[in-house]
Amino acid sequence: MNKTDGQISMPVIRRLPRYYRCLLTLEQNQTDKVSSKTLSELLGFTASQVRQDLNCFGGFGQQGCGYSVAVLKEKIEELLGIDKKKKVVIYGVGNLGRAIMCHFDFEKYGFEVSGLFDKNPELISTLLRGIEIRDDATVVDFIKENPVDVAFLCIPTLGAQSVVERLYSAGVRTFWNFSHFDIKANYPDCTVENVHLSESLMILSYLMTNKNTEE
Amino acid sequence: MNKTDGQISMPVIRRLPRYYRCLLTLEQNQTDKVSSKTLSELLGFTASQVRQDLNCFGGFGQQGCGYSVAVLKEKIEELLGIDKKKKVVIYGVGNLGRAIMCHFDFEKYGFEVSGLFDKNPELISTLLRGIEIRDDATVVDFIKENPVDVAFLCIPTLGAQSVVERLYSAGVRTFWNFSHFDIKANYPDCTVENVHLSESLMILSYLMTNKNTEE
Repeated sequence: MNKTDGQISMPVIRRLPRYYRCLLTLEQNQTDKVSSKTLSELLGFTASQVRQDLNCFGGFGQQGCGYSVAVLKEKIEELLGIDKKKKVVIYGVGNLGRAIMCHFDFEKYGFEVSGLFDKNPELISTLLRGIEIRDDATVVDFIKENPVDVAFLCIPTLGAQSVVERLYSAGVRTFWNFSHFDIKANYPDCTVENVHLSESLMILSYLMTNKNTEE
Repeated sequence: MNKTDGQISMPVIRRLPRYYRCLLTLEQNQTDKVSSKTLSELLGFTASQVRQDLNCFGGFGQQGCGYSVAVLKEKIEELLGIDKKKKVVIYGVGNLGRAIMCHFDFEKYGFEVSGLFDKNPELISTLLRGIEIRDDATVVDFIKENPVDVAFLCIPTLGAQSVVERLYSAGVRTFWNFSHFDIKANYPDCTVENVHLSESLMILSYLMTNKNTEE
């Protein structure tokens, strides 16, 4: 990973959504100020890790007073770019793509679907939440006429390479990747966020086999 | 969170899948030993956090030699209970449930599906990967006859409460929860792993709006 002047390192950024969810809860509980010690207890990081993380974006904490929940929350929203509009194509509207499209509130984070694509002839030209599912053969032309910021890749690993190839040739460089295809290895100039359901399942495995441990 | 004698705290456990994936990569690269410094660079935790985490389960590191990749990996597998068989019902075989059932390799982590349940009459009695989808009204009786360890809850928040109620009454106390229904708040004695796709999407939002940052 690289860190350039004035930028926050990715490991810190990766922890911000957890801070964010924690701050939302504190806000709901009408907590105005929070200490690094309390945050560390709530999040399970060391207090020094919390101070180090939050110092990265400007030292809002005052000795003895803690951090302002509202300021910290707003700052994280801004840092994560949640307020900015981002145009999406969803590639693959099989089960997973449909689940994302119909049951996940991505609009809340500024994402807006421009197009849906699949290779299944039975799906092509049908509508999903009012948006037409298009033939994946037309994706390059579509994106050239309707520039998008990101593709949600909701397909299995098999066949993912050729899909990424096509999207890449259309100019897409950002992917939310549910396939296990290693986009970064094959297209190093792409920005990729991989969804690792396996990590969550490993934690579940732990919780089940250590029932006396509670969070 | 609680931590009892001899047990590893949950925040440490939650980091183990990331260590695990990292160790798999090191193993693939034929790396035998790894220092806490290298692990901290690869994972983005402080070196002191890494040492603290790994000390929790027995201090395999030798001064100047680092940690054995193989020993650490095996120990994490054992700690997470991946080798143990765990019986599952998948509740909700709409888009998300189907995606999990058909495209996610949960068997690799020791999970085995015993039953599939849905309330949609069009799905009931059809087969998915050779397993019959059953009427959710029969779930309590089924589980009493075929004890399961965990339910994968693949339904939207709306209606989740009554489903959890039914599964709970059948004796299920462990959930992999894709709904946003707060199971813990309503059934405090349950073990729950929530899947927060929103965290991943917030990171993507960051990556897109800060294109000059690379991991």
